[in-house]
Amino acid sequence: MNTEYAYAPSEPDGFNNTITQPISPDGIPELARDYRVPAREGRAVRLDVGQRLTIVNPSGTQVCDFWAFNARDPREFLSMEHLRTALGRTIPRVGDALVSNRRRALLTIIEDSSPGIHDTLIAACDLERYRELGVADYHDNCTDNLRMALMAIGMSAPEIPSPFNIWMNVPVDSNGTFDWLPPVARPGDAVSLRAEVACIAVMSACPQDITKVNGSEAEPSELRFRVD
Amino acid sequence: MNTEYAYAPSEPDGFNNTITQPISPDGIPELARDYRVPAREGRAVRLDVGQRLTIVNPSGTQVCDFWAFNARDPREFLSMEHLRTALGRTIPRVGDALVSNRRRALLTIIEDSSPGIHDTLIAACDLERYRELGVADYHDNCTDNLRMALMAIGMSAPEIPSPFNIWMNVPVDSNGTFDWLPPVARPGDAVSLRAEVACIAVMSACPQDITKVNGSEAEPSELRFRVD
Repeated sequence: MNTEYAYAPSEPDGFNNTITQPISPDGIPELARDYRVPAREGRAVRLDVGQRLTIVNPSGTQVCDFWAFNARDPREFLSMEHLRTALGRTIPRVGDALVSNRRRALLTIIEDSSPGIHDTLIAACDLERYRELGVADYHDNCTDNLRMALMAIGMSAPEIPSPFNIWMNVPVDSNGTFDWLPPVARPGDAVSLRAEVACIAVMSACPQDITKVNGSEAEPSELRFRVD
Repeated sequence: MNTEYAYAPSEPDGFNNTITQPISPDGIPELARDYRVPAREGRAVRLDVGQRLTIVNPSGTQVCDFWAFNARDPREFLSMEHLRTALGRTIPRVGDALVSNRRRALLTIIEDSSPGIHDTLIAACDLERYRELGVADYHDNCTDNLRMALMAIGMSAPEIPSPFNIWMNVPVDSNGTFDWLPPVARPGDAVSLRAEVACIAVMSACPQDITKVNGSEAEPSELRFRVD
């Protein structure tokens, strides 16, 4: 991976640049370029059939809320409830197709260097979630990041699908009760997805810093990605 | 419960009357009347704040796919991913609020005479699901029942939320793997929900007859409901 970043770090200035700093005006990536999703922000990227999106977790502790929409008809999108039904289990693995609300494969997981602990059960964080957690002011959130990342490339979200929470560690016990734990990924772990149809993928570096889902320090960090 | 039914049984004629036989033109119920959701069909009902919807499982083996929309703004609806996040577990119980995609309580479960085995993980069946299961012709399905039940009272579904599958028995083991089992409800078991906001509830008597989710005979049967 090269060391040329798309943008300077945005964390210090306290602004969320999701809407102003798309990777390109239409979301088409430069192949093999190392892109950043700055901490607390989101980015959208267009993928052609057969292209491979690799998402990197530099800290190992960062959750990536992930969505994908069919580029030709964004009313078709990655659906966690249809995915679980297709798999017969809660968490997809290498080799599994990620299916849409029309039960078609949009992407396939082709590599995962992490221990494979991801989540399909939990909603994207949103302003209402931070209100519940006692935050009075605006708080960056994955739902707004999805909306803004799509707007930044001239699209709009037809709805807010339940996300594929890459690296989110919410184990379910035999009574169906959840635990909320930090990710078990290692620094630099990566997940690679192959596009089975032309689609728009959206990644949000989850800004959750009240619960520990982004590590025991609850400090959101950046993600990286590239398309080959 | 009285024995006066809203409609004659529709099973023998092989037609799905969801779109032609709403409980009333606007979905407003006659209080304390015993309504049927014929096998394989769906019905919508409007609930005012504080009203109580009781759904009965006459056979004990029938799954009810359930949705609810805010009557004032149907873009707010019962959301399984937000519900699981709020509860910290997969299955709601008596006393639990059923929350929306805006994290507000739309309904509360106030009674459940069944063993409390329900599902929040599995997508509503749809035509694509029956295609996968080898059905070539049209097959009644919960997704179309939702669309038609709303159209029958002059509404349209803004999207197809993941359903609350009352009585669906899909246990998850510690590896996250599902089993698909018949319901464990008893004949006549009932679930009662109190409306916390004015809402439109939709029930589909799941027409799944390929897998055994509606009993070991895989024979869909009717549901009953009343509003008090």
